Amino acid sequence: MQPFPTLYVDLEVVQSNIARMSEKAKKAGVEFRPHFKTHQSKDIGRIFREFGVTGITVSSIKMAEYFLSDGWDDITIAFPANVLAHKSYNDMCKKASLKTLVISEEVVKKLDQKLEHDLGLYIEIDPDYGRSGVPVSEMNRIRTLLKVIEESEHCYPAGFYCHAGHTYKARSRGEVEKISREALQKLEVLKEHFPKLPVCFGDTPSCSVLDEFGPATQISPGNFVFYDWMQVQIGSCSPNEIGIYMECPVIEKFSDRNQVLIHGGAVHFSKDSVQVDDYLSYGEPMLKYLSEETYVKSLSQEHGIIQCSSYVFNKLNVGETIQIFPIHSCLTADLMREYHTKDGQVLDHMNGQQGNS
Amino acid sequence: MQPFPTLYVDLEVVQSNIARMSEKAKKAGVEFRPHFKTHQSKDIGRIFREFGVTGITVSSIKMAEYFLSDGWDDITIAFPANVLAHKSYNDMCKKASLKTLVISEEVVKKLDQKLEHDLGLYIEIDPDYGRSGVPVSEMNRIRTLLKVIEESEHCYPAGFYCHAGHTYKARSRGEVEKISREALQKLEVLKEHFPKLPVCFGDTPSCSVLDEFGPATQISPGNFVFYDWMQVQIGSCSPNEIGIYMECPVIEKFSDRNQVLIHGGAVHFSKDSVQVDDYLSYGEPMLKYLSEETYVKSLSQEHGIIQCSSYVFNKLNVGETIQIFPIHSCLTADLMREYHTKDGQVLDHMNGQQGNS
Repeated sequence: MQPFPTLYVDLEVVQSNIARMSEKAKKAGVEFRPHFKTHQSKDIGRIFREFGVTGITVSSIKMAEYFLSDGWDDITIAFPANVLAHKSYNDMCKKASLKTLVISEEVVKKLDQKLEHDLGLYIEIDPDYGRSGVPVSEMNRIRTLLKVIEESEHCYPAGFYCHAGHTYKARSRGEVEKISREALQKLEVLKEHFPKLPVCFGDTPSCSVLDEFGPATQISPGNFVFYDWMQVQIGSCSPNEIGIYMECPVIEKFSDRNQVLIHGGAVHFSKDSVQVDDYLSYGEPMLKYLSEETYVKSLSQEHGIIQCSSYVFNKLNVGETIQIFPIHSCLTADLMREYHTKDGQVLDHMNGQQGNS
Repeated sequence: MQPFPTLYVDLEVVQSNIARMSEKAKKAGVEFRPHFKTHQSKDIGRIFREFGVTGITVSSIKMAEYFLSDGWDDITIAFPANVLAHKSYNDMCKKASLKTLVISEEVVKKLDQKLEHDLGLYIEIDPDYGRSGVPVSEMNRIRTLLKVIEESEHCYPAGFYCHAGHTYKARSRGEVEKISREALQKLEVLKEHFPKLPVCFGDTPSCSVLDEFGPATQISPGNFVFYDWMQVQIGSCSPNEIGIYMECPVIEKFSDRNQVLIHGGAVHFSKDSVQVDDYLSYGEPMLKYLSEETYVKSLSQEHGIIQCSSYVFNKLNVGETIQIFPIHSCLTADLMREYHTKDGQVLDHMNGQQGNS
C-alpha cells in the first residue's frame, strides 16, 4: 500500500481499449490517428506502435515536441495555430510532418510570413459544439480559407478537423449516437465539394459508440485509452473498461455523517466533476460492493471527503487505502505526472519534467 | 511576449502582502506561521525569512520534506496524520520540530507504535466548517484525545488547530467578519480549559479582515501571499493586491459572439470557478478597461474562451497576449510549476520536479 495518493494504470485494460479502437478503425476503413493528450506518456505511446499507428494527434506544441523526441514524426496539433509560436513550428517542421488547425485567413497569412518550412493546416469545422471552428454552413468562408492556404508559401491543406465535443453532454449511447450522426451528416458536404481532402473526426464518445464514420477518413479519439467515470455516465464505456485508478490513504472516519477523509484532493484528481443522479461526484470508489450512495463528495487542495453508504463506511479502515476511478482521466493524469503498475513499474508522463510554460 | 501560457509573479505585491500580514500578527501579539501551500516555492519562502518568520505551515508531507530541504526546521503539516506515512514522519522528526493534526485516538495510538522520534500533534477543531476536526462542543472527546497524546511515547500536544474554511462562502468583509468572529468565539472555551496550549487559527479571509484574534495565539493564512479573484469576491482583498497573473496568447476571435479563444485551459488555470453576479468565471482578464462583461467563460484541456464586452473584443488582437487573474491561485500555481518575473527571473515551485506520488 502506497502511503500517498498514487495513480495506477492497468495495462491489460489499456491494451484492450487500444486493440478495440484500432480494429474498429480498420473495419471502418479510416486512418487511426489517436489523440495522445490523455496519457501524455512516451511509454504508453509506444503501445500504440504495436498496433501499426504512425500518425498521432496532440493538444499542444509542447506535447508535439515531447512525442517528436520519441520518434513520432507525423503529428497533428489539434489546436488552432498560434502565430506567436512560429519558432516552435519551424523547429519541428524540419524534422516531422507537422499539421495544426486553422480557422481564419488572418492567422494563415500572419503565420506564413514567419514559416521557413512546410506546415499542414486542417481547417477546423465547428459541428455546432460552439467552442471554435468554422460552421459548414459558411461554405464561402471555407473556400476562401482553403484558397489562402493553397496560395501561401509554406502552408498546405491537410484537410478538415472536427471535434464534436457536445457528445459530452449525452447521458446514453443513444444520445451519443444521435449527436455524432448529426455531426457527421454535416461533414458530408465537405466530402462532396473537396473529395480529395481528408476529414478527421474525433471524440471518444462518438468513436466508442459508432462503427462507421460516414464522410470521415480519419479518427482521433484520445480519452478511450483510459476512459473514466464521466465516460461511463456518457455511455461510452462500462466500468471494467476504465484503465486507470487512484489509490488514496484513508485518513479518518466520521461516523456521525458516514464520511471518510482521504488524502487525495484537487491537486491529485483535478476539480472536474460529473452529475450522477442527484449528486455531484468528484470521483467514484471502485469497491466490489459498489453502491450508488458512495462517491467523492468534495475536494479541497489535499483533502477528499467520501460520502458512504453505511455498509461501505463500515468496510473502510483508517490506515488502509481506497481505490477510486477519476472523473476525468486526462486531468488526473496531468496532475499525477506518472503511472504505477501493479507489478511495480513506473511509466512516464510529460509533466514529470521541469516547468509548464 | 511569451508564446505559451505563462504564470507571472509581481514581487512588489507579494512583499507588500507579506509585510501587511506580518505587521498585523505582531500588533495582535500572535505568532505568524504562514501556510506555504499556495506558493510551494523555496524562492518565495525565503522572502518570509526577511520578516522574521521561523515556523511555517504546509498541507502535505511531501511539501514538508521540500521546505525542510531548504532549512525550515519548525513545520506544521496542517493535515490529519496519515498512519501509513510513519517512515516520512520519522525521517523528518530527526531533523526538525514537526507537528501535524489529529482527530481520533485510534490514529494517535496506531501512529505512536510506529514512531521513533517526537512528533507534535495539534488537535484539529471543526468550527462548523464540516470538513474534518472535533467540534468544541465535544469537550470530553477533546480531553480524552489530549490524554492519549500525553500518555503516548512519542507524541506530544502542540495545541489546537482550527481552519474556518466556511469563510470562503462569504461575499463581503462584513460576512467574513461575522463567520470568523463566531469561529473564534467557539475557541474561547479551549483557552479557558487549556490556557497553556497554543491555538492556531488560519484562513486568508479571516486573517485579512480581522485585526485581533481573540483566543488564538498563532495564525497560519496562506493564500494572502498572492490572493486571487475568488478572494476579491469574498471581500478579502482588492484587485491591486493580487500578486500573480497568467499571460496567455490570443489565438482566434469569434466576432459573431464576441468571444476570444486563448491558449490557456484546465491544465493551466485548474477548473476552479467562482460565481460573479449572474455568470460563472474561470478567470478574470486584468485589463485597464476592465468590464464586468469580460470573463473566462469556459475551459477545456488547453482551450480557454473569453466572453468579452464589444469594447474589449475590439481591443484584443490575434498574435498578442492577454493577462488574466486566476480564480484560485493555489491551484493555478500548482499546475504552472514555476513563476516568471517581469525582469526575466524564474522562481521555483515544488512541482517543477519528478512525479506526484
